Amino acid sequence: MLLKVKILNIDSGGKPVVFLNDKDADDLNITASERVTVKSKKKITSIVNISATIEKGFLGVTEEVRKILSLTQNSKVTVDIAPFPKSLQFIRNKLSGKKLLYPEINEIVRDLVDGNLNENEISAFVTALHIDKIDLDEATSLSRSMVDTGKTLCIDKKIIVDKHSIGGVPGDKTTLLVVPIIASEGFIIPKTSSRAITSVAGTADRAEVLMPVEFTANKMLQILKKANGCIVWGGAIELAPADEIFVKTEFSLHIDPLLLPSIMSKKKAVGATHLVVDIPTGRGAKMKTTGEADLLARDIIELGRRLRIHTHCIVTFGEQPIGNSIGPALEAKEALEVLMNQKQVPDLIDKTCNIAGSMFELLGKKDGYLLAKKILESGKAEKKMRDIIKTQGGNSSVLPEDIKIGNHTLFIRSEKSGQVLWMENRIIVDIGRAAGAPKDKGAGIVFNKKIGDHVEKGELLFTIFAEKSHKLDRVKYILTNQSPIGIGKRSDMLIHKITESPTVERTFVIDR
Amino acid sequence: MLLKVKILNIDSGGKPVVFLNDKDADDLNITASERVTVKSKKKITSIVNISATIEKGFLGVTEEVRKILSLTQNSKVTVDIAPFPKSLQFIRNKLSGKKLLYPEINEIVRDLVDGNLNENEISAFVTALHIDKIDLDEATSLSRSMVDTGKTLCIDKKIIVDKHSIGGVPGDKTTLLVVPIIASEGFIIPKTSSRAITSVAGTADRAEVLMPVEFTANKMLQILKKANGCIVWGGAIELAPADEIFVKTEFSLHIDPLLLPSIMSKKKAVGATHLVVDIPTGRGAKMKTTGEADLLARDIIELGRRLRIHTHCIVTFGEQPIGNSIGPALEAKEALEVLMNQKQVPDLIDKTCNIAGSMFELLGKKDGYLLAKKILESGKAEKKMRDIIKTQGGNSSVLPEDIKIGNHTLFIRSEKSGQVLWMENRIIVDIGRAAGAPKDKGAGIVFNKKIGDHVEKGELLFTIFAEKSHKLDRVKYILTNQSPIGIGKRSDMLIHKITESPTVERTFVIDR
Repeated sequence: MLLKVKILNIDSGGKPVVFLNDKDADDLNITASERVTVKSKKKITSIVNISATIEKGFLGVTEEVRKILSLTQNSKVTVDIAPFPKSLQFIRNKLSGKKLLYPEINEIVRDLVDGNLNENEISAFVTALHIDKIDLDEATSLSRSMVDTGKTLCIDKKIIVDKHSIGGVPGDKTTLLVVPIIASEGFIIPKTSSRAITSVAGTADRAEVLMPVEFTANKMLQILKKANGCIVWGGAIELAPADEIFVKTEFSLHIDPLLLPSIMSKKKAVGATHLVVDIPTGRGAKMKTTGEADLLARDIIELGRRLRIHTHCIVTFGEQPIGNSIGPALEAKEALEVLMNQKQVPDLIDKTCNIAGSMFELLGKKDGYLLAKKILESGKAEKKMRDIIKTQGGNSSVLPEDIKIGNHTLFIRSEKSGQVLWMENRIIVDIGRAAGAPKDKGAGIVFNKKIGDHVEKGELLFTIFAEKSHKLDRVKYILTNQSPIGIGKRSDMLIHKITESPTVERTFVIDR
Repeated sequence: MLLKVKILNIDSGGKPVVFLNDKDADDLNITASERVTVKSKKKITSIVNISATIEKGFLGVTEEVRKILSLTQNSKVTVDIAPFPKSLQFIRNKLSGKKLLYPEINEIVRDLVDGNLNENEISAFVTALHIDKIDLDEATSLSRSMVDTGKTLCIDKKIIVDKHSIGGVPGDKTTLLVVPIIASEGFIIPKTSSRAITSVAGTADRAEVLMPVEFTANKMLQILKKANGCIVWGGAIELAPADEIFVKTEFSLHIDPLLLPSIMSKKKAVGATHLVVDIPTGRGAKMKTTGEADLLARDIIELGRRLRIHTHCIVTFGEQPIGNSIGPALEAKEALEVLMNQKQVPDLIDKTCNIAGSMFELLGKKDGYLLAKKILESGKAEKKMRDIIKTQGGNSSVLPEDIKIGNHTLFIRSEKSGQVLWMENRIIVDIGRAAGAPKDKGAGIVFNKKIGDHVEKGELLFTIFAEKSHKLDRVKYILTNQSPIGIGKRSDMLIHKITESPTVERTFVIDR
């Protein structure tokens, strides 16, 4: 069918979408959300919307379609019903309980990346993987397919090192310390990181306080050649683009069946041969118990084996923030202070040395923890970090006091004496985001007390920083209803009372 | 946030959708597919698309939003982040394996009908109901909620009769016979029917050949007052509008977890007190075995009990079309011929008398089957049908030869002698739809042979009718690859060979 182009001047969120009059749709024997091929000089497949506002004989095109096909107003295009996507049949098979094989998953991921699957179909696939529990064969196929459909990094080295945290703990700036420690020993560590989606700061947000983090794959290779290590935003590199699409669906549904393929595909895409994965565990973290964490570690290690990535996991304490600060700038500052040995932040240093140490041991070195600690204390890690900052185009002589922190503050003091019994990560994150993080880099929280600390009535518990004063109003509102810190006697037993059907608020962490 | 309206001149398929610049979305702390409230004089909740083509400070509105709020170009509206929909939390609970309670399901269905749930969320909910198997409690809650969120018919009678078929068999024009038989005995039968989605003809399509079928609820009540019975299109009455939204998602995924709530809510909405449900069974039907059919009947009867609808089921032979014709006009013609006792169509008459007979027995009459047959043979059913046709505004003296059939034909003759061993409903439907049905009412197929009949080589098997000659090309193409009728010896054992991983094509029937 030959139709005239009507430029709609709207975009459709990345996916090519066209609008058809219902009569033309009938003639093509097509209903909404199905697919047509649109041909001018090039030919693409596009999802169909049916719209009474498009005249018969016209095809409404979104910006995505206009750009790909270089269309102009009133130009002619040939529109036909697209061949039925085999991947949709495979999704339907999954819905009827079939385990999917590699060629089937590959077809699905390819169609997903090409924009040939509509939201219904993607959502059903992700939901089925969640409810039916994705198994290791499917996770392997998904990891491979996600690598195949994206860019890969070709680093000409036998050993390529990487680290990852499955996330969920605020204030985890460990990567800013681990990367320079590993790189200072001459190992290649091509670290790609994410920005925050549900958290207060992603590692890319933290690193960006110190240096640029958006680079192409080629530029990343140059940085690695000079500095051995890097900390860059993964989004710009276009590794595993399928992940970005899956994450959108998972985020909206609060499920993440693709956690493992997402992590492992991105590691495989940078060519990692040795990997340490941190699994924060505890009531406020993604994994609630060590039993759960161990089972996850089992799957990660096996998936690593299948993808030829030698993987170790470490299970770490995740019931409170790491270190004393959260928020991009505050965390970058704390990391720099520790690298410069200006400040002792025991839990942050311990976690850092455990991760870097495990990595050293995975690479055959003895006493990894001590080696990592020595590198940190000797200033070698700081030197390497300044080397990386310089190579990525930042100010390599940056000092902690140069880092801008929001100048609107709110001091929260204890209303009673006692001991800090618990900290609630979910509420801490809510407060941090309400204060403006991660968008406002200078927003965040500094804690004066952590679990186990003794507190006197009136003593400072934590300080909230914001770049814009009105954001503190929202913080105050949260604090009238909820407290992120529980203070009491160690014999206090009551957590809370439930007297009627409660509204359940669950934490969900999709940053990975 | 105060924004200027930009009229986009496109519609979004019924759901209110607005487009925001990414900076404004950031300021509102909202991401794509989330919800905002838009306020002018009225206030609505709307799904957000994020678009670079909308300038900062503007809100792109689709026709749906423009109409509801009566907006004009450049008028000002207040846009705010919408309160988090509780129903989404309930959907998430369902995804984590929880059975949902009535207030939760009611909240979901209400938000669905109000357009507050996006496609991801609806699809995940439907998928979870499918994979986790919706139970009878949830089916009851869904049925009730679907009734609550739509219109209901208030008929001031103690006994209100209805029938339904779960569908899947082509040529099933039984309703056109059952309704007048029941109504002629003085019972009220407010029959609402659907149009075809995946089939060759829905009962509304068939009935429309004889009379108008689109009426408001009030007009339907007037028709019933005059004629006791009616056959109208359910879509115009707006009973259970949630069903239309669910069906779209189910159709695209080839799953139908909402089958029972869909059927029963529409029966409850018309006030049915007594119901017979036909379950066609066999390899070519929706239910493949009588075991499956019986289990479905069990659930239907129990759901009826909970909704206070006294329900019987009949399991019928569904391996081939009912009667000799398929396609809206051909089927209306065949029904009229049987009503006029001009033609003997044994299977159609038997099925009709079984359904009407079961209904009579459910209502306390004896020998229902014989009673139904007598009413049919006596001409009382014909008289009542002409009464209904007249009341609905059709030509009550219509004769079979007045009904227009497509005048392009294709005669298919047997290539060998033998016996009809099987008929394949799926291929029959494909051919009927390729010929133009249900859109072209005069398109369809007339069968000269059915299962068990003896056939000589060269003898006519069936005739295809089309309104447009080019549609027969597509029919010919289907017939080069597939045959809808298997002819052979009764000792022939082979069904088909599989020598490599096959592409599986499954039938899916969503008409209900």
